[in-house]
Amino acid sequence: MQHILIIGAGKSASSLISYLLKKSETENFCVTIGDLSLETIQIILNNHLNGKAILLNIFDENQLISAIENADVVISMLPARFHMLVAIKCLNLNKHLVTASYVSNEMKALHKKVKAKGLVFMNEIGLDPGIDHMSAMKIIDEIRDSGGKMLLFESFCGGLVAPESDDNLWNYKFTWNPRNVVLAGQGGTAKFIQEGKYKYIPYHKLFRRTEIFKIDEYGKFEAYPNRDSLKYIKEYGLEDVLTLYRGTIRRVGFSKAWNVFVQLGMTDDSYTVDDSETMSYRDFTNSFLAYNPNDSVELKLRHYLKIDQDDIIWEKLLELDIFNPTKVVGLKNATPAQILQKILQDKWTLKKEDKDMIVMQHLFGFEKDGKKQQIKSSMVCVGDDQTYTAMAKTVGLPVGIAALKILKGEINSPGVQIPTKKDIYEPILEELTKNGIIFKEKYVQYFGYNPEQIHG
Amino acid sequence: MQHILIIGAGKSASSLISYLLKKSETENFCVTIGDLSLETIQIILNNHLNGKAILLNIFDENQLISAIENADVVISMLPARFHMLVAIKCLNLNKHLVTASYVSNEMKALHKKVKAKGLVFMNEIGLDPGIDHMSAMKIIDEIRDSGGKMLLFESFCGGLVAPESDDNLWNYKFTWNPRNVVLAGQGGTAKFIQEGKYKYIPYHKLFRRTEIFKIDEYGKFEAYPNRDSLKYIKEYGLEDVLTLYRGTIRRVGFSKAWNVFVQLGMTDDSYTVDDSETMSYRDFTNSFLAYNPNDSVELKLRHYLKIDQDDIIWEKLLELDIFNPTKVVGLKNATPAQILQKILQDKWTLKKEDKDMIVMQHLFGFEKDGKKQQIKSSMVCVGDDQTYTAMAKTVGLPVGIAALKILKGEINSPGVQIPTKKDIYEPILEELTKNGIIFKEKYVQYFGYNPEQIHG
Repeated sequence: MQHILIIGAGKSASSLISYLLKKSETENFCVTIGDLSLETIQIILNNHLNGKAILLNIFDENQLISAIENADVVISMLPARFHMLVAIKCLNLNKHLVTASYVSNEMKALHKKVKAKGLVFMNEIGLDPGIDHMSAMKIIDEIRDSGGKMLLFESFCGGLVAPESDDNLWNYKFTWNPRNVVLAGQGGTAKFIQEGKYKYIPYHKLFRRTEIFKIDEYGKFEAYPNRDSLKYIKEYGLEDVLTLYRGTIRRVGFSKAWNVFVQLGMTDDSYTVDDSETMSYRDFTNSFLAYNPNDSVELKLRHYLKIDQDDIIWEKLLELDIFNPTKVVGLKNATPAQILQKILQDKWTLKKEDKDMIVMQHLFGFEKDGKKQQIKSSMVCVGDDQTYTAMAKTVGLPVGIAALKILKGEINSPGVQIPTKKDIYEPILEELTKNGIIFKEKYVQYFGYNPEQIHG
Repeated sequence: MQHILIIGAGKSASSLISYLLKKSETENFCVTIGDLSLETIQIILNNHLNGKAILLNIFDENQLISAIENADVVISMLPARFHMLVAIKCLNLNKHLVTASYVSNEMKALHKKVKAKGLVFMNEIGLDPGIDHMSAMKIIDEIRDSGGKMLLFESFCGGLVAPESDDNLWNYKFTWNPRNVVLAGQGGTAKFIQEGKYKYIPYHKLFRRTEIFKIDEYGKFEAYPNRDSLKYIKEYGLEDVLTLYRGTIRRVGFSKAWNVFVQLGMTDDSYTVDDSETMSYRDFTNSFLAYNPNDSVELKLRHYLKIDQDDIIWEKLLELDIFNPTKVVGLKNATPAQILQKILQDKWTLKKEDKDMIVMQHLFGFEKDGKKQQIKSSMVCVGDDQTYTAMAKTVGLPVGIAALKILKGEINSPGVQIPTKKDIYEPILEELTKNGIIFKEKYVQYFGYNPEQIHG
């Protein structure tokens, strides 16, 4: 019997495992999941005949080798920095590999050897990166194949709380790693192109330079620019495009309020705060404001950042309790970013019955037969519950589909790769559609990059 | 005859050389200046009988050794990163060393060996660091010796243009390395203590958190906080102080206008701008603003940063010509910071007859006999011309004075050190006073840290 090994059973493995187990019933293969703890896996496996959980410590070489030896395709759901440990073993033992992470330089360097052995090392096959590549390349290839010339590509993606669970003023809860949300946008100036002009936005202005767009049935969203838009020129072959912009989606108004934390310096992760363990939330807020014993922390902050008392931003700050003098941070030697994360987790942690939501939208502008047109492609995925979250579905399903197609020899072009080629993305997108991850496309008026109009 | 060797004859060596040559006439020693080029040195030496210039490439080991061998005291006026090259040779050849730079960890590590050989390696003996240490420790020691308890220490220093040469709206010209001015404040959050509270200011808010103070006869100045105030707790023994703040001096209004560049992202040195060689000043400014073909770059900037059309900030920006569509940057693969420096140098370069000015002010708050008091100590030094600048005088004179006192055995406590001890700073400050670098002290009302009042 053929055999898929999944290494690492984190939050996004639930849908992946369930999909593969269901498929195993008709396609005749079995699934082994290796992790340091078997507890959560057992619930998802639910005694399925084709499923097995094994204790696996990737730093125990014998364990790792014996697990991989028994498999035909290996899926690494480990944190990105551990993929190479698995990749080397897959190469040596002649096994295919699937990951949902960006291709590192080290992974890329394996390409020749992987190819020579006829192996497929498929990467960037989760949500973002993953579904974004495939759904974008599908339309870009269609436009080109029909003789069109690409002028504009904008792409937005975000993990949010589902409308039915959306009950705070920020319209946001943590549906993924909170630390990444707090640090989002740091580590370099955002760069993109608008109508042929390079544009640069420093971190401290990122959340004031949002774009607004609408998705049918779901209303308005906003996006702030990602750091790395320019690298997609090469990856998608968009050398002549006038506008290229990638952004992260939030509900309208989030970024303007988040900017308060950025301006204060609360998202800084580069130093530790004195007395972070014993300080109150109010002390923390005050440490970013000028000393003045005669003014309240509230008024100092309002004055510093010019927030009117009837501004909704103010209500958002109050909702997070950042002026509370009795709530204690309780974290030793914490950075501002770690303290902020703690404060946010008090309010933004999903409740048991809450659902998450993934939103993705691409805009493609192009010229064909002398006419400019625009296609909008949107996908919204809502989680079933806190096991089969939208995040788990959109990350895990493409990984599972790709692994199965590699197992069955349907994806067989060898080498270290990402899913930007038609023979790969087409069957995967088709299977995703059958599993509820559906892109709706429509032709719209050509806007170009037009900051004055909301993409309707 | 005793012998002082000066390695490196940069901008700040003029006053140093002149001081030592003059002293050599009565104190019986000679001075050798080693540099890669002899041109400027010859003018300053002016055929003095006790002075000699030699070609010296510090990377030629034989040259370096033979130059140091002939000396009794070596002064390194090289860029800080090259001091260690000289220090190692001084240690091996049993020579004293003087530098105006911060003690690096590598330099500090030599302490035991230097001490064992009875050598003096005096560092941080220029202006800042240097004169700041000595003038501050003098008052701090006086307060303590008379039974006072330090409560507050604030210290400000800046290099500016002299009032008689101050003819632009920014009240600023480059009197020192322009690159350091453009990058000032980057590389870490500013940290200080006000009335016992730790305060943190991120870079993008630094220039909006200034303090205003006055110096008799010279009017008002402002200071933005330095990054490193907290390290002076240990260096000056100020463990119990309630307020500790160090800042960089500008004329009032400079920082608010400079903040425009920070907000736009023009001071970023971490990436290169596409087409920097051919772009106009206007293109450069526009690259930080949203794309909109219907609005002017001017209006976009005013709106983005909320600058009223009658705001003096606006006039300051116009004075720098940042909206000029025909002036070309002309720098290949330049960072925003490098481009901004170019634009500023067009306007802020000293004219031939311009003079510079160094301003330093310390505030000492303390309690003595149950009474709180405050001492203000201020120093202003104006340059004679563009050779004997205020910067050259305030950096070079303390270096020269220290070197001579080491040569004469008046400073003889061995080891790697900085001038914070009384037996060192007292005679040096006395000699500085004779040479026109004079601190004026006065008792003022105890303010504590009081943001609402200008230190009068």
